[in-house]
Amino acid sequence: MPISSSSDSDVPVTINSEKALVVLSGGQDSTTCLFWAIREFGVDNVSALSFDYGQRHRIELDSAAKVAAFARVSHRCLPIDTFAALGGDALTDPAIEVAGDLDEPSALPNTFVPGRNLIFLTFAAAWAWPRKLDNLVTGVSQTDYSGYPDCRASTLQSLQETLRLGMESQIKIHAPLMHLSKKETVLLARQLGAIEAMAFTHTCYNGERPPCGECPACRLRAKGFAEAGIADPLVT
Amino acid sequence: MPISSSSDSDVPVTINSEKALVVLSGGQDSTTCLFWAIREFGVDNVSALSFDYGQRHRIELDSAAKVAAFARVSHRCLPIDTFAALGGDALTDPAIEVAGDLDEPSALPNTFVPGRNLIFLTFAAAWAWPRKLDNLVTGVSQTDYSGYPDCRASTLQSLQETLRLGMESQIKIHAPLMHLSKKETVLLARQLGAIEAMAFTHTCYNGERPPCGECPACRLRAKGFAEAGIADPLVT
Repeated sequence: MPISSSSDSDVPVTINSEKALVVLSGGQDSTTCLFWAIREFGVDNVSALSFDYGQRHRIELDSAAKVAAFARVSHRCLPIDTFAALGGDALTDPAIEVAGDLDEPSALPNTFVPGRNLIFLTFAAAWAWPRKLDNLVTGVSQTDYSGYPDCRASTLQSLQETLRLGMESQIKIHAPLMHLSKKETVLLARQLGAIEAMAFTHTCYNGERPPCGECPACRLRAKGFAEAGIADPLVT
Repeated sequence: MPISSSSDSDVPVTINSEKALVVLSGGQDSTTCLFWAIREFGVDNVSALSFDYGQRHRIELDSAAKVAAFARVSHRCLPIDTFAALGGDALTDPAIEVAGDLDEPSALPNTFVPGRNLIFLTFAAAWAWPRKLDNLVTGVSQTDYSGYPDCRASTLQSLQETLRLGMESQIKIHAPLMHLSKKETVLLARQLGAIEAMAFTHTCYNGERPPCGECPACRLRAKGFAEAGIADPLVT
């Protein structure tokens, strides 16, 4: 990390301490990452950023705000109105029914936006740049249900290089859950003291709170907690 | 380009013909690129995309629409409301005066958004993806006044790789003006039959039409036309 000192100069010493920005969706994974960042960088050096991009369940943004407040880190939410226009007719023309499930990656609904994670991280890097936050933390994983190519390690590695070139920065993208299973993510959350915060997170595809327990997201979450032998405070 | 054929199958033959999407700002450079794309890919294979991102001069979007209509290519405009929020206080808090000049790259105003071109091209790639437009065309140049690191060839090369990985595509980014001077760009425009279209473009930093002729953008444009020995239809 860039720490410059000038002992024999009148120029004030500039210290770019290691600071991190966590992309916080309000879900289980990004919440775990927030606590990972707090351990790695210290709570005073961590902030969180969410995106209001017209997600189906607004409760996700409420969850993100609650998680950030619980963790005592600053939190901002930026709007992105482009996805709705990009997603095309199904999202912008009320006469067309949305096909598929926005949150179900096994199918590509007619609102699917390729490269959405690239956009999130590029906007996060743009937010981080003037604030000298040299570390971006994202909860994406290529292990579990997230088959999106923009969540893979190779893509993030390439994106990091693109951001460094395009912003003349030394930004680093961290994806601590990249190669973990859901069980391992829950175990990591316990190790980080993040289990209590899970009470504020949102996972349910159906947008229900308490969660429906029946949708694929609820079942995947339940399976991870069960395999880790840990009670999920959201449902207990 | 991917052209697949299956001679002994019931599956219909799929031909992904070479199609191009031009990021059209309404300025001189992207207009030249539009005509370059028409020459390279054929007018029926070219479409144009603009972004309404809160640019200072709305006349740019009018120019883009007029240029596209003149060139007889389809044209869409997508909103991006994030830059205003990213640009931070100066753009979102009316109590703070905008410092510097948004269009003057020699200084970084407090509304400067790093990586803006990365966002434009990533959204363009996301728009192109379901439409099987495998070629993105951008008018950026690292020769002239555009000192932005996200306009350099090395950055675009890295971004192309990131987009290919992140969208599992074979997308190609073309920047035909990358290494041209303004004079050379004007000469290319003449070669492409694009001079007449320049009457619809917008360049003036002050948002004036007819252009003020005094701002740095107007002077740079005039210098290019003068050195090429060609009359600019916008001012003649």
